[in-house]
Order: sequence, then structure tokens, then C-alpha cells
Amino acid sequence: MYGYAEDKDELLARLRRAEGQVRGIQRMVDEDEYCIDILTQIAAANSALRKVAVSLLDDHIRHCVSEARGSSREAKVAEATAAVDRLLKS
Amino acid sequence: MYGYAEDKDELLARLRRAEGQVRGIQRMVDEDEYCIDILTQIAAANSALRKVAVSLLDDHIRHCVSEARGSSREAKVAEATAAVDRLLKS
Amino acid sequence: MYGYAEDKDELLARLRRAEGQVRGIQRMVDEDEYCIDILTQIAAANSALRKVAVSLLDDHIRHCVSEARGSSREAKVAEATAAVDRLLKS
Amino acid sequence: MYGYAEDKDELLARLRRAEGQVRGIQRMVDEDEYCIDILTQIAAANSALRKVAVSLLDDHIRHCVSEARGSSREAKVAEATAAVDRLLKS
Repeated sequence: MYGYAEDKDELLARLRRAEGQVRGIQRMVDEDEYCIDILTQIAAANSALRKVAVSLLDDHIRHCVSEARGSSREAKVAEATAAVDRLLKS
Repeated sequence: MYGYAEDKDELLARLRRAEGQVRGIQRMVDEDEYCIDILTQIAAANSALRKVAVSLLDDHIRHCVSEARGSSREAKVAEATAAVDRLLKS
Repeated sequence: MYGYAEDKDELLARLRRAEGQVRGIQRMVDEDEYCIDILTQIAAANSALRKVAVSLLDDHIRHCVSEARGSSREAKVAEATAAVDRLLKS
Repeated sequence: MYGYAEDKDELLARLRRAEGQVRGIQRMVDEDEYCIDILTQIAAANSALRKVAVSLLDDHIRHCVSEARGSSREAKVAEATAAVDRLLKS
């Protein structure tokens, strides 16, 4: 079981809100709402997903990385920082 | 009617995929999948939303900004660049 | 002459500060300062560059895009939004 | 001595290049070069700083986090993920 189990309910609540935001953006596009208001909602959905990502990363470092040993730990650190790099570029 | 009307079907298709990605992330969290795989999916959802945002911004500049005149144009440019700033920080 | 001429002094002042921040980061690395403090300085330098970018984009849209006509305007809008996309991914 | 000592030369070389890029951006602004070309250089400088940040984070997690114990480790993980959050928002 991975480290985020303890935060699972909170992560799922955040993700349901992000899903609702993305659905709201679809409705805004469908109803021809003003571009800038839609961009504001996209920034909000991005922020929600960023918070989920940072929380998962925190759990990953806390559990998977810290408890691993030797080359397994090396691999897990490399995975974590590659994931951060992908997030920074997304 | 705003400028993005012509791209509406493509925007809605992208947004439905992004919604599906966010729902997939919920399922991954719910089924205790590996953190790093979930982070990869979050980066993918961010990228999908970024593409929608850039497409909306393109339409906004093309139509609202370029066709406005005088102080109305000033205001629309300011709105557009403030929206870019919010996206860059999200 | 491009649109940013009027803001040139302010842009140059911001860029000199960003250059100073990057030089400060080198000194911190050279003197083995604490990683997290260096990461904080990198975030500050990124923010400084983001502000310069948003200001240049504002000038570009205001002058180059709004004053162009026909296919030249199309090309300038496409350039501007491609630049935003590169910034969002950088 | 922190974890990044072994990569110090490479980090310093990258940072000197980033400093050169920021100086180049100043020259471009000073010589009224085309906005979009300047934005491209800003994206390049951001990417250079992102690589330095990810490398420092890698070292930090590898050394400071993994070797700490108990509440000290908790604090170091929290610092690392707060730094990632600041980078994602910068």
C-alpha cells in the first residue's frame, strides 16, 4: 500500500472538484461564455491538480523514497525528480 | 458570439478527454496505484488543459483584441495578458 | 520600433535584477548553501523573468498584433500564442 | 556539506549559461529586437533554471531527506515539497 492511503479521502475530494471544474469549463465553452472567464477556470483547475500532485509527491518521498535502500532508493529518487520535471513542463 | 465558435467541437472534444483523464486519476488513487504513474497522468491532464487555454487565447487575441478600438482594445489586451499571467502561475 | 520601447527602462531594470539573482544563485551553490534556499531563489528568478515576459507579450499584442491587418495579423497572433505555449512549458 | 557538492561544477556551468542568457535578453531589449525572439530566450532561460532546480531537488531528496530520521525527516520532506510547489507557481 502506498503512502497516500492516509490522505486518500482528501485527494479524492480534490479530484472530484477538479473533475467538476473541467466539466464546468465544457459548459462554459458550450454556452459561448467569455474566453477570459474560461481561462480563469482553466487556471483554477490547473491549481487544483497541482495541489494533488504536490500532495502525492510528498507521500511518495516520505514513504517510498525514505524507506528504500541502496540502488532501489536511487531509482525512486530519480523517478520522483523526473516526475517533478514533467510537471514543471506540463 | 466569441471567436472560439469555429473551434468549439475540437475544444469540447479536448475537454472531454481532460475530464476523462481527471476521472482516471481518481480511479488510480482509489485503487492505490503507484504515485509516480498518477503524477504522470496529472502532467498529461495539465498539458491537455494548457492546449485548450492556448487555443482560447489565440481566438481571443484574433477576434476580441484585434477588432476592438481605443480604450476598449487596451482593456482587452490587459485582460488577455493578465489571463496569461494567471496560467503561468497556476 | 517595437511596442516595448516605452517600458524599456523598467524592463531593463527588471532584467538586471534577474541577472543579479542568477549570479546570487551561483554564489549560493559555490558556498554550499542549503538546497531549499537556492530553490527559493530560483523560483524568485523565474517570477522575475515571467513578469518581463508578460510585459513584452502585452506590448506585442497591443502594437504588433492590433495594428497588423489580414494575413500579417494572423501570423502575428499565431507567433504570440506559440510564444505563450513555449513559456507555459518552460 | 550538502548533497549537490558532487554536481557543483555542472550546476555552476549551467548557471553561468543562464546568467549569459539573461544578459543576452537585456541586450535584445536594449537593441529593440523583436518581442517574440526575446520571449523565446526567456523560455530558454527558464528551462535552464528548471534543470538546475530539478538537479538540486534530486540531490536534496537523495541526501538530506533520505538520511534524516523521524521528525527531522518529516520536516525535510515538507520543505522539499513546499519548494516544488513554489517552483510550479513561479
